Amino acid sequence: MDEIFQIQLDKTSEVPMYRQLADAIGALAADGLLPADSKLPPIRKMASHFGVNTVTIVTAYKYLEQKQMVYSRVGSGTYISPLPVEKVPEPVARRNLQLFEKTPALEHAINFTLSSLPNELFPVDAFKKAFDTVLEREKGGAFRYTDSMGYLPLREELCRYLASFGIHTAAEHLQIISGAQQGIDIMSKAILRYGDVVFVESPTFYGAAGAFLSRGAKLIGIPMEADGMEMEALKNYLKLYHPRFIYMMAYFQTPTGVSYSMEKKRRLLELAEKYDTYIIEEDDFYDFHYSREIPLPLKALDYKNRVIYIKSFSKILMPGLRMGLMVLPKKVRHAVMEAKYTTDISTSGFIQKSLEEYLRVNGWEAHGKQVRQYGSGKYRKAVSMAKKYLLPKGASFALPDGGVSLWVRLPDGVDAEVFCNRALEKNVLVSPGSQFFIEEGTGSHVRLSFAGLTDDKIEVGMKRIGEVLGEL
Amino acid sequence: MDEIFQIQLDKTSEVPMYRQLADAIGALAADGLLPADSKLPPIRKMASHFGVNTVTIVTAYKYLEQKQMVYSRVGSGTYISPLPVEKVPEPVARRNLQLFEKTPALEHAINFTLSSLPNELFPVDAFKKAFDTVLEREKGGAFRYTDSMGYLPLREELCRYLASFGIHTAAEHLQIISGAQQGIDIMSKAILRYGDVVFVESPTFYGAAGAFLSRGAKLIGIPMEADGMEMEALKNYLKLYHPRFIYMMAYFQTPTGVSYSMEKKRRLLELAEKYDTYIIEEDDFYDFHYSREIPLPLKALDYKNRVIYIKSFSKILMPGLRMGLMVLPKKVRHAVMEAKYTTDISTSGFIQKSLEEYLRVNGWEAHGKQVRQYGSGKYRKAVSMAKKYLLPKGASFALPDGGVSLWVRLPDGVDAEVFCNRALEKNVLVSPGSQFFIEEGTGSHVRLSFAGLTDDKIEVGMKRIGEVLGEL
Repeated sequence: MDEIFQIQLDKTSEVPMYRQLADAIGALAADGLLPADSKLPPIRKMASHFGVNTVTIVTAYKYLEQKQMVYSRVGSGTYISPLPVEKVPEPVARRNLQLFEKTPALEHAINFTLSSLPNELFPVDAFKKAFDTVLEREKGGAFRYTDSMGYLPLREELCRYLASFGIHTAAEHLQIISGAQQGIDIMSKAILRYGDVVFVESPTFYGAAGAFLSRGAKLIGIPMEADGMEMEALKNYLKLYHPRFIYMMAYFQTPTGVSYSMEKKRRLLELAEKYDTYIIEEDDFYDFHYSREIPLPLKALDYKNRVIYIKSFSKILMPGLRMGLMVLPKKVRHAVMEAKYTTDISTSGFIQKSLEEYLRVNGWEAHGKQVRQYGSGKYRKAVSMAKKYLLPKGASFALPDGGVSLWVRLPDGVDAEVFCNRALEKNVLVSPGSQFFIEEGTGSHVRLSFAGLTDDKIEVGMKRIGEVLGEL
Repeated sequence: MDEIFQIQLDKTSEVPMYRQLADAIGALAADGLLPADSKLPPIRKMASHFGVNTVTIVTAYKYLEQKQMVYSRVGSGTYISPLPVEKVPEPVARRNLQLFEKTPALEHAINFTLSSLPNELFPVDAFKKAFDTVLEREKGGAFRYTDSMGYLPLREELCRYLASFGIHTAAEHLQIISGAQQGIDIMSKAILRYGDVVFVESPTFYGAAGAFLSRGAKLIGIPMEADGMEMEALKNYLKLYHPRFIYMMAYFQTPTGVSYSMEKKRRLLELAEKYDTYIIEEDDFYDFHYSREIPLPLKALDYKNRVIYIKSFSKILMPGLRMGLMVLPKKVRHAVMEAKYTTDISTSGFIQKSLEEYLRVNGWEAHGKQVRQYGSGKYRKAVSMAKKYLLPKGASFALPDGGVSLWVRLPDGVDAEVFCNRALEKNVLVSPGSQFFIEEGTGSHVRLSFAGLTDDKIEVGMKRIGEVLGEL
């Protein structure tokens, strides 16, 4: 509040003192120099500093309150209001849902845009057994509606799984969802109001951004650094806006592959607590960590119940299951149950019961290990080929040591969309980085996903990409 | 527009003539006497009628346009604007999603609130075969993501099914959904904007109303009569508001059981065309028709592409499949695809492929017949018991000749919520009609669903309900 004491009043002006003071405070707030919810100095202190009557200060504060620039709490004082939503910078919100635009059906294309594992890794036989067992046991009962929150024995089983990587919770805080995307959509329905502000990482996953935008939210992108969001930027934006929540991925972020440092995870939780907001943590790739350092979910550090944790089973198990889970703070539970009900009543009970049977018989460990070994092999192949063919052409990339893609920065002057079109001519499909930005025109990156490709295709694909870089 | 020519101007007043005229036209519009989008009389005609200069009329229209009470189309004329959304009467929008509030777990309760068939009628063995066949054939491929619109061979199969009751469409207009509720939710996401008006039947299905409200829509309930919506009321509201769509069920409506007369179906389509709006037709109970008269979907009469048809498979097949379909006018297809993607990417490919296999092998007919016979038997039992125990106590009900519930009007002076509580004391669960109204305090009806009850339970339940009526 030091800024307020630097205000200069003109005692010779015709403009009343109260009005001069109020306008000056208003201008500071509009410029973002007085954080939302910060307390204005006490009346007496102001009066004595400016050499005016206390009535002048009271009138100035009242005037600001009428203009809704401040609010008062009885017996406590006067506070700066959050900026109205109209003042939030409008992102040029392109809706980048290009995935289901038919991509040209190239029979022998090398497709670096998909992050699903190959069919051979899906535990099909084990699931077939689980389906049979459930149908034997329950007959028609397998196809009744289930509890909107999900099948209780499955939720209990999943609690044990979550505990294995540090998330300790109870079945009553778990919501079963039809895939992570549904979790994002349901959270939006449950807690977003029209005109709310949402912070996202920049770049971020377009499916999530699309769900938030469809609820009329305003998005603000917080730039990503090598170890997570830029915390200064986050803090500055938090001073100005009250986001309903912050959407993020703690490790192997889509699309950058970045994992948060422990320091930034702690800081993020502190800021969420201080500025009274939620964090939606999406976790798609926990099981795809290849180094000795085991990733820790943000939720595992969440002692203040600020984190809504959404886990996808599409990567670790199978995308076609359409299954995932959410861990919910108690405060949002009822709203989420309502939202789930009006979304699709409940997730398929048959699939839930079969997953429970599968997990009880097979556990997570063996399959998880298999998936990690596979991913790790592909990762090493992709990295070595990218080093061989891409680095010499001036491209660069970080080494996430996890996940199933590389976030490649193209050489200066090479436009990503142009690059992708040229690669397509060589039968190589690549995702332009612009797909992951909420703003227009950030065309310096591409994402290369290698989850479903053979080693041969990875090599041939990288070689062709290198050739395109050479030509451009 | 006759009302306009009845306006009296006071040439002696100090208020300018243009202003008198504009205010008078504005008052007529605000009272709903000039329908939205109706054309104002031509300038010359007005000038000669009121004996003023044409400039006076031009100024009056301009003034109304500045106040956004009219709008002009170049070369065409000036039109009355729809009323702003703030003027729409606010329904006391209670969110009546009481179904997943834990109902008291009464072991031997007679439950008249559920409309699912008993497990024994689910075609479990045939589905088990279909699951096996699909897994044999596709192995891991059964669990990949599918096209957001749905598995093409399934959509083709469903087109043949739809044609069997008069809906002729092509696979590209079909969207597979995870149950009818998801269809309602996705349509809301695709075409509702914050503050839009939606017309619903009154009473209506609370799950649909909840989805519309969650998108910030304003609901207006059109009263139901014995043969469909009250068309005069509908027409009058259409003159005042531009609903984004009208939500309805053409036969065995939830909760009243009403089916629309052919006349009203035709009228509804005419009005949708005239006032340029969509109709969302939900169909849950096609296969539950017990009389010789076969119901005709509104969609089968829809030559102008005004109807978005949503079909549930929860009743005819099994609720736990979470499967349904939508038939879409071309104009909304792209928006729906986007909405489906950000909702849950796609419906489980495994279940879709299994349903396709099931239908190809078994068809609809045999199972449909079985379900209809079962429903018809329950219906006859329920009607005869209701006649025996409820009519003598002053209750009344219509005979829908289809569906799986009765909409019972309680004797005058008996409050439905009080009644339901008293029934609960006798171990009988009943849905109060108030659950289906968007306004508060309409407590004269209850819904009795008998789909899952044995004949014995229907008899004992109706007898106890009669006793409660006697006591109240």
